[in-house]
Amino acid sequence: MSNVKVGIIMGSQSDLSVMKCAAEALKQFGIEYEITIVSAHRTPDRMVEYARSAVERNIGIIIAGAGGAAHLPGMVASLSVVPVIGVPVKSSNSLDGWDSLLSIAQMPRGIPVATVAVDGAYNAGILAIEMLAVASNDLRSKLMDYKKGLADKVEQMVREVENNPDL
Amino acid sequence: MSNVKVGIIMGSQSDLSVMKCAAEALKQFGIEYEITIVSAHRTPDRMVEYARSAVERNIGIIIAGAGGAAHLPGMVASLSVVPVIGVPVKSSNSLDGWDSLLSIAQMPRGIPVATVAVDGAYNAGILAIEMLAVASNDLRSKLMDYKKGLADKVEQMVREVENNPDL
Amino acid sequence: MSNVKVGIIMGSQSDLSVMKCAAEALKQFGIEYEITIVSAHRTPDRMVEYARSAVERNIGIIIAGAGGAAHLPGMVASLSVVPVIGVPVKSSNSLDGWDSLLSIAQMPRGIPVATVAVDGAYNAGILAIEMLAVASNDLRSKLMDYKKGLADKVEQMVREVENNPDL
Amino acid sequence: MSNVKVGIIMGSQSDLSVMKCAAEALKQFGIEYEITIVSAHRTPDRMVEYARSAVERNIGIIIAGAGGAAHLPGMVASLSVVPVIGVPVKSSNSLDGWDSLLSIAQMPRGIPVATVAVDGAYNAGILAIEMLAVASNDLRSKLMDYKKGLADKVEQMVREVENNPDL
Amino acid sequence: MSNVKVGIIMGSQSDLSVMKCAAEALKQFGIEYEITIVSAHRTPDRMVEYARSAVERNIGIIIAGAGGAAHLPGMVASLSVVPVIGVPVKSSNSLDGWDSLLSIAQMPRGIPVATVAVDGAYNAGILAIEMLAVASNDLRSKLMDYKKGLADKVEQMVREVENNPDL
Amino acid sequence: MSNVKVGIIMGSQSDLSVMKCAAEALKQFGIEYEITIVSAHRTPDRMVEYARSAVERNIGIIIAGAGGAAHLPGMVASLSVVPVIGVPVKSSNSLDGWDSLLSIAQMPRGIPVATVAVDGAYNAGILAIEMLAVASNDLRSKLMDYKKGLADKVEQMVREVENNPDL
Amino acid sequence: MSNVKVGIIMGSQSDLSVMKCAAEALKQFGIEYEITIVSAHRTPDRMVEYARSAVERNIGIIIAGAGGAAHLPGMVASLSVVPVIGVPVKSSNSLDGWDSLLSIAQMPRGIPVATVAVDGAYNAGILAIEMLAVASNDLRSKLMDYKKGLADKVEQMVREVENNPDL
Amino acid sequence: MSNVKVGIIMGSQSDLSVMKCAAEALKQFGIEYEITIVSAHRTPDRMVEYARSAVERNIGIIIAGAGGAAHLPGMVASLSVVPVIGVPVKSSNSLDGWDSLLSIAQMPRGIPVATVAVDGAYNAGILAIEMLAVASNDLRSKLMDYKKGLADKVEQMVREVENNPDL
Repeated sequence: MSNVKVGIIMGSQSDLSVMKCAAEALKQFGIEYEITIVSAHRTPDRMVEYARSAVERNIGIIIAGAGGAAHLPGMVASLSVVPVIGVPVKSSNSLDGWDSLLSIAQMPRGIPVATVAVDGAYNAGILAIEMLAVASNDLRSKLMDYKKGLADKVEQMVREVENNPDL
Repeated sequence: MSNVKVGIIMGSQSDLSVMKCAAEALKQFGIEYEITIVSAHRTPDRMVEYARSAVERNIGIIIAGAGGAAHLPGMVASLSVVPVIGVPVKSSNSLDGWDSLLSIAQMPRGIPVATVAVDGAYNAGILAIEMLAVASNDLRSKLMDYKKGLADKVEQMVREVENNPDL
Repeated sequence: MSNVKVGIIMGSQSDLSVMKCAAEALKQFGIEYEITIVSAHRTPDRMVEYARSAVERNIGIIIAGAGGAAHLPGMVASLSVVPVIGVPVKSSNSLDGWDSLLSIAQMPRGIPVATVAVDGAYNAGILAIEMLAVASNDLRSKLMDYKKGLADKVEQMVREVENNPDL
Repeated sequence: MSNVKVGIIMGSQSDLSVMKCAAEALKQFGIEYEITIVSAHRTPDRMVEYARSAVERNIGIIIAGAGGAAHLPGMVASLSVVPVIGVPVKSSNSLDGWDSLLSIAQMPRGIPVATVAVDGAYNAGILAIEMLAVASNDLRSKLMDYKKGLADKVEQMVREVENNPDL
Repeated sequence: MSNVKVGIIMGSQSDLSVMKCAAEALKQFGIEYEITIVSAHRTPDRMVEYARSAVERNIGIIIAGAGGAAHLPGMVASLSVVPVIGVPVKSSNSLDGWDSLLSIAQMPRGIPVATVAVDGAYNAGILAIEMLAVASNDLRSKLMDYKKGLADKVEQMVREVENNPDL
Repeated sequence: MSNVKVGIIMGSQSDLSVMKCAAEALKQFGIEYEITIVSAHRTPDRMVEYARSAVERNIGIIIAGAGGAAHLPGMVASLSVVPVIGVPVKSSNSLDGWDSLLSIAQMPRGIPVATVAVDGAYNAGILAIEMLAVASNDLRSKLMDYKKGLADKVEQMVREVENNPDL
Repeated sequence: MSNVKVGIIMGSQSDLSVMKCAAEALKQFGIEYEITIVSAHRTPDRMVEYARSAVERNIGIIIAGAGGAAHLPGMVASLSVVPVIGVPVKSSNSLDGWDSLLSIAQMPRGIPVATVAVDGAYNAGILAIEMLAVASNDLRSKLMDYKKGLADKVEQMVREVENNPDL
Repeated sequence: MSNVKVGIIMGSQSDLSVMKCAAEALKQFGIEYEITIVSAHRTPDRMVEYARSAVERNIGIIIAGAGGAAHLPGMVASLSVVPVIGVPVKSSNSLDGWDSLLSIAQMPRGIPVATVAVDGAYNAGILAIEMLAVASNDLRSKLMDYKKGLADKVEQMVREVENNPDL
């Protein structure tokens, strides 16, 4: 599993401002990733090719973001046996993200998509790391440190709030 | 256009009780159709093959029904230039049809799906006939007769209600 | 079918910024269209007249956009046998487009409206072209080229994203 | 105003089980009414005729019920200056009444519909009586008695609940 | 009925920017009105007093606007036999108006509120005029003229759009 | 505080099957309660009287259940300084409880209602006990025992599931 | 009960702009409070510690605010017998507050959370005071004065609106 | 990774009929699992213990199901670095599963839950297998066979539908 990469894909360049947070999480943990555009609706052949060749290109997990009638995560899950993490994007032409969320989460029996929160690309990255950590004690340790870091930031907030004389 | 058929597809045999109403409408107008199962998520290759070969098999319009994260209509629309009519199915594993409706209607720029009402397969058939009638005066006349028939049935209801002494 | 035009109508001039994208799509394909204002609620007679005379004025398809309690597409579908494409407009007085979408999509048995996404006027134009292409090999070829163009734009995005050293 | 009647209309005979409660309320107050079927989508001419001739037929108020993409109340309001009370019907092909409610309530500037609760036909009848009572001291007295009756029924419930030894 | 006035009330001064459109409509038709603040939750006694004394103060119709858990219209309807028109206000602390709409429309059997669209105060005014016109041929004529005016404005839009060389 | 009782009220006898669970919780803890019907819309005077006299009748907390446009909890909160716990009832004429929930929870600044889950009358009882326990070490101990009991029941489930050979 | 304090907690410093209104209400009534950050998801140990030690630190009521999948109020309610008031925060990553509201209100049998309106932190403070007033005649009097103050402010609005010559 | 097990937990025995489908999927692939009850709200200590000890008990992935205000998946994700798959259960006291879905999916930054469809426990099992297959060529092969099996079942449906003379 030494060379496993995470593939980050999205339907359009306009999803990049949301989706690059997945890359940010992976970088934090030193996980290799590829990021590119794959549109289920405008480049279906590219999508088939991308999903079918994922394993041989050492892509072990796919993070797919899309908005509106968001079919990319589900279709990639259909075309591959790699776990697919779906990020519902609240794009300008979505119904505030409701359509994106339902189009990604409500997959039929046999073809799951691991759905995260609306615009939750950073968490998609963390979830990918947790998946990789199932077989890596080293990554698991890093995740424990990461969680300590989250708690530390809250403790910092605690000090700021508790020392704020206006509250 | 003499041999144009309508292709009726759905993601699962469990959608048949809803989707056969599309066939019922086409039969009423003497329009040839094919009906079969094509699952976007379980048979993606079959879906690509079905959509890509539609034109050469004389399929001029596709009616596609699906429930939950309903990707079949949108993906078929992506893979073909034939107009695709999407039927959101309120299947047992859908959120009362809301997920089906949004997954089908909210397609991105460039790849429309002609969405009808939740469980509106009969109307999908009528819409297909209207599309065929754009180039057929004969079908257009039949549609006019059909609309008269709808009005006649209402007139029948009118008589029943107006003559009902209990109302 | 040589002279078939597409009629684009909307309930108010305030819908124009959304609805002119339907015209944009038709222009791209060299399809003749008429664009005007028809209000179901403020000019019901004009609506009846418009819908009833569509065929004789060579209007083969009607694209109708409206917001809120959006009755225009459904009523025009009721008054004509021409296929009607409905565009739910997320106008300022709508409930974020939910009311527009439901008022247009949820038509009763016998009277379909081909509903596209909220604010999806451009797609309404493409759908009209797909309908016309059912009987036109020439248009069908243009649609194939158009889809290639969509894919090409994605490929351009691919190059930009994959060559972006910051990602 | 001595001969003013209330017109009760609905899109289909299947709405009758809900809509007859409007008649029930009117009967209770001795208000004359007519009840019939008028379908916006299947009998648009009948709808125009019905709405336009309402005043001369002494119909002072119209109660209109419909389900799904419920256009009847709004269109009748468009075609007449008589106040229109809309009843959203939770019919089998509606999205649990949400589509009916939004299609009736969210009317544009200038053309109101007095919307009552989903399946609230009885209340539509009471509202019609309240409208007639604006110009009738006699009806107003009856409404006051009616409200006393409602309170009396609650008082009866109070006795039953307060005397229930199991509670 | 010569002196009948319309009472316009709202829960807070912050609703005034929406609710003054009800007054605007009434002014257009020369209907007398009173406008004031009545809060169901902060001034329940004032509300009871206002609703109970409406008839003797010649208030024939009440227009009540409120946002969030909007109880004012329903409570005033409970306390009076005057028809109450409810305006759901999309105030800053409402859930985009959904709570306001449901709190006003979904009244129980016996106590209707004539609900208009979210932020539809202008239409509340028109609806009040339609109610008054049930007993006034003069007002009915004015409403007919008003509807003609609405149509004229659409015709003006028609000319602008049809003569716009950019469309 | 020795004699403080809890008042349980609901808009209609039809809410009793849901609301009696509040009484069940109170009985479990030996808390005195009164249960009766108070309708905001049909008996507004009774509601004012009930809320205004609560304190002098030793009612320290009010649990109020209602469905649809559920105004009873909010109005009682308006009329009293006693804490009011609101139970949204999913009655047959509600929109699956959504209207009840929003009508109760979305109260304006200054007049809170402590809202529990849809049909959550039992929890309303527990919440009342927690409120009373703020000033009662004895009740607090009982609540701790109660929570242990909840955990014990889960432990019983654990044994059943873990010993089930079919799982 | 002389030293009872209210604990105000929230999942993140970003909730402070909403949650400080709870403190504002408590200050108005001279109720002692503590305000700090406790994250259910990032500092679960701190949350357990906070909830379990609440009683011994004289915290009689906890006000907990959170957004999105808002677990803090429910978990604190699970870990303590102190009444917990939940404030659904419409944070930037929530679905307009719907997720926050449902995650807080829909608690299972046995573990209630007293839910207030979305962003209703001020009301959470008032509700805490009402709970404390169950055992304090003095606080109850202050609440009565507070309600008079609310009414007075409405009366001030009344004067402004009724004297506004433009209305 | 040879001994990694999947832990299946749920808030109540009443979730078992849904959640046992996760076990069914795992059995199909020969994956070891443990199934038990862990209630976030009734047994918070058990939950902490369960989540904290997961790794040392060789639990590599946790599948957690819950309904209503479904906090179990998110809290377990907070307490562990093991990937957590959340199953929103449409329990009788949920709002048709909407509350369950949002409470599980909308997790804050840093603490993801891999959410599947409402009542999608079987898919949770498949997703767990996909996660384990990231490091197991053997499991990956089985998944490929499984997908072929899904396609085969569709092909069987195809034959039944295409040979049905009634269609």
